[in-house]
Amino acid sequence: MKGLWLENNQLQLRTNIAIPEPPSEEALVRVLYAGICNTDLELKRGYYPYTGILGHEFVGIVEQGPEHLVNQRVVGEINAVCGHCRFCRTGQPTHCENRTVLGIVNRHGAFAEYLCLPVENLHPVPDNVPSEVATFTEPLAAALEIQQQVALSANDRVLVVGDGKLGQLVAQTLALIGCELLVVGRHREKLANLEARGIKTDLAEAVKDRAFDISVECTGNAEGFAIARRALRPRGTLVLKSTYAGNLNIDASSLVVDEITLIGSRCGPFPAALQLLATGQVDVQPLIHGRYPLSEGLLAFELAQRRGVLKVLLEIS
Amino acid sequence: MKGLWLENNQLQLRTNIAIPEPPSEEALVRVLYAGICNTDLELKRGYYPYTGILGHEFVGIVEQGPEHLVNQRVVGEINAVCGHCRFCRTGQPTHCENRTVLGIVNRHGAFAEYLCLPVENLHPVPDNVPSEVATFTEPLAAALEIQQQVALSANDRVLVVGDGKLGQLVAQTLALIGCELLVVGRHREKLANLEARGIKTDLAEAVKDRAFDISVECTGNAEGFAIARRALRPRGTLVLKSTYAGNLNIDASSLVVDEITLIGSRCGPFPAALQLLATGQVDVQPLIHGRYPLSEGLLAFELAQRRGVLKVLLEIS
Repeated sequence: MKGLWLENNQLQLRTNIAIPEPPSEEALVRVLYAGICNTDLELKRGYYPYTGILGHEFVGIVEQGPEHLVNQRVVGEINAVCGHCRFCRTGQPTHCENRTVLGIVNRHGAFAEYLCLPVENLHPVPDNVPSEVATFTEPLAAALEIQQQVALSANDRVLVVGDGKLGQLVAQTLALIGCELLVVGRHREKLANLEARGIKTDLAEAVKDRAFDISVECTGNAEGFAIARRALRPRGTLVLKSTYAGNLNIDASSLVVDEITLIGSRCGPFPAALQLLATGQVDVQPLIHGRYPLSEGLLAFELAQRRGVLKVLLEIS
Repeated sequence: MKGLWLENNQLQLRTNIAIPEPPSEEALVRVLYAGICNTDLELKRGYYPYTGILGHEFVGIVEQGPEHLVNQRVVGEINAVCGHCRFCRTGQPTHCENRTVLGIVNRHGAFAEYLCLPVENLHPVPDNVPSEVATFTEPLAAALEIQQQVALSANDRVLVVGDGKLGQLVAQTLALIGCELLVVGRHREKLANLEARGIKTDLAEAVKDRAFDISVECTGNAEGFAIARRALRPRGTLVLKSTYAGNLNIDASSLVVDEITLIGSRCGPFPAALQLLATGQVDVQPLIHGRYPLSEGLLAFELAQRRGVLKVLLEIS
């Protein structure tokens, strides 16, 4: 089969990859669409070591697996877990100590014609959710993780820093809470997507110091972190929603003086994400920048790295 | 009066400072003892700009003020607040936007014969608490702040990094919860203080990776932070209890992947601290390294900066 293979920071389109054979308790999924995420770009840049097929945002059709799933359209949680470590036993499987992670850690990913995942990871996609849209389930679930970690109320003043793919999903999920929300970024045309949904936006420069209860950093760069930090009132909470290229240099004393909480946030609940897509409460169509066949995957990657580009989808089968 | 005056990173013993006249709603306190804290050492090193009399840990006797306090031995909360800003109005006076802070921000401190503080900041010292011991109320209250911020239970595995003054107070307060506690440091003789109280200790090198639910960083240096960080299990909480000289360089991506919570922690509840001192549940005597008269204050400061030295007290009147 064809697939985008990463090795020594080089991404290659390989055409002779063997179709995987699912181990017992796993299903074989034919990939329909897959989305390129910033984590993929970072893996390609070599920030984490990984060799194999990239990709973890996907929708596909089960070709081999339990009867109730075969021929179903599915999305899949990316952490394949052991089920018996201290995190699995305490309801925190995304932190399984023995996990493999689709296209990220020791498990071939979704930028290929087929992938395998444990059956328990798969969620059928409601019929009314187009496949392109379903591809956003994983990042949307990640956006929803914030609400699992931080108690948010309608009175909270919340700042989202970053108007990229993730920032836009985070903003839409937070808007549903009815909190006092502002999204800042550098791209007027991206912010316009959110304005069209009635979400208040501004350029990053406009953020007032110490004015927000919660800030969500979705840029993955030091400048975005600095904005998210200075925007917080004392005892505010800064959610780190992006990974960072390299280390961050932070004024830790100011975190102590202002008793700031910083919280890292990763994978989230798939069922809730699917429901938001099925009910149309979150609209991902404006986030799709373009669709490319897998054979043009390298070109799609180049495009996804460009400033101002939102989600690039691979149309795989 | 005499006082230790900081100006342009130079600490001087001045002998001709005017005795302050308390504004209405403030009391004049004759200082008995004051303790030298790491924050004082950092102020002297110039990490924060401050000009005036240093010192914020003290016990004294009220000489002018409301009748019920005159001639009483008191300790004092260090934040003098406005009472009407958004933080004062919401029960968070230590974050008052218009605060002055004893010996730290725009308010002369305790390394002098007299100081002024708002009457509401003062707490009478129970008769059975020696004055030397009462000097520890402020840092002990700061140690107790951790329990105001983080829900701790007997099942939690808690690591305290640092065997200095603050680490020892933090350790003693956490031991009272009955959690599974380990204190690590670099000084066997300091750790012995805690061992004598039945608290488990070890050298910093012995800390196991990803083994603790909560870690409390009490060293104020990057190495201590690194130990506190690597000791945490995923979804663990790192309490920043010390201020830092300069910035910290952190691997923010690992905070995201492991969904770590970082929380800055500062001033805490005085009444609870006084009660622990009055009941003897916390023992600060082993923490006293020495006592120096104010006239030898510069020498006392030199001593307090030395590796291995715990609390240096100024015996003022």
